[in-house]
Amino acid sequence: MSIKIITISRQFGSGGRTIAKTLAQKLGYDYYDKEIIENVAEMTGFSKEVVATKGEEAPGKSIFSYGFEAQAVPGIMNGMTVNDYIWTVQRKVIKDIADSGKPCVIVGRSADYILKDYDSVLNVYICADMQFRKDRIVRLYGESEKKPEKRLEEKDKKRAANHKHFTDLEWGYAPNYDLCLNSASLGIDKCVEIISDLVQKG
Amino acid sequence: MSIKIITISRQFGSGGRTIAKTLAQKLGYDYYDKEIIENVAEMTGFSKEVVATKGEEAPGKSIFSYGFEAQAVPGIMNGMTVNDYIWTVQRKVIKDIADSGKPCVIVGRSADYILKDYDSVLNVYICADMQFRKDRIVRLYGESEKKPEKRLEEKDKKRAANHKHFTDLEWGYAPNYDLCLNSASLGIDKCVEIISDLVQKG
Repeated sequence: MSIKIITISRQFGSGGRTIAKTLAQKLGYDYYDKEIIENVAEMTGFSKEVVATKGEEAPGKSIFSYGFEAQAVPGIMNGMTVNDYIWTVQRKVIKDIADSGKPCVIVGRSADYILKDYDSVLNVYICADMQFRKDRIVRLYGESEKKPEKRLEEKDKKRAANHKHFTDLEWGYAPNYDLCLNSASLGIDKCVEIISDLVQKG
Repeated sequence: MSIKIITISRQFGSGGRTIAKTLAQKLGYDYYDKEIIENVAEMTGFSKEVVATKGEEAPGKSIFSYGFEAQAVPGIMNGMTVNDYIWTVQRKVIKDIADSGKPCVIVGRSADYILKDYDSVLNVYICADMQFRKDRIVRLYGESEKKPEKRLEEKDKKRAANHKHFTDLEWGYAPNYDLCLNSASLGIDKCVEIISDLVQKG
């Protein structure tokens, strides 16, 4: 299996982003994470914060808010909700990256699903137990009013709902990926090594 | 991470058993699969067929059948259903294997959950897409009246229900394992190599 594109889906706090970044450096691959958000923000006119938040949420249930949002960019959004519109643009940005033909690592944004018809793609899911993730987010992002467990649960729920809404697939269900690694038990370095070995040895 | 025990959970038709067997040979580890069924059959007095079937099913809904089954071994089963009784004995057999201290590979039977408090255990889940599994079961086990897709769906459903019933965990949900490998995309040999590298390189 010749691997040109690696998509990394990850539980919040699992170290998935660190694994993706280290892997890209090690392999000399391009790295896409916040770059996607920046591109989508530029193409849609929404702020990076809105793209970052809405791009990982499933649409909520407020019809009013949808009605309002759908008016935001009349003529372009064609009655779509902000979330649907961001998804559509994000999808195009990710496909353009893949179409460029340059080897790359892409973090999040359901890139695994968006590139499902492309060859040479390795879809990886990084997860970890609650304790590991709690310790990690407090160390990296500090304390907040909400308890770390609550923050993790909310983020997990939003990512799963977003993924389900747009792909109809269960987020984190192993058969939807090529490889799932538990960074808490294997260690972050070992996760990088397993993936890079796969790419380099074929 | 020093790995002494490898548990392999697997989707029917994914080649998980072949991976487990090859891995055990490569590492010189003991291999437990049908041996567990034979031990449980001997200890309970049930036939190997009953143990094999009931040990991977969740209890159904027939109260009558439970009432009848609960009488099967009076005084020993203590009012348990056959499934619960087999689970209890199976749990003991698997713990005895682990307690023996000899390195081993254990296939199926929720050994990952049963050994959750043991050190040096690597929990692996092997999965594959429907087409790979369909081709594989027809090649290995031949055609049957039921279409291969139906056979796979039924088996998946039973294993997931059994696992949920006894462990309250989602079968195949990546965060419940250390490592999940897709044998269809990675190849069976590569799955063996990834796991054995992990064990040998630590």
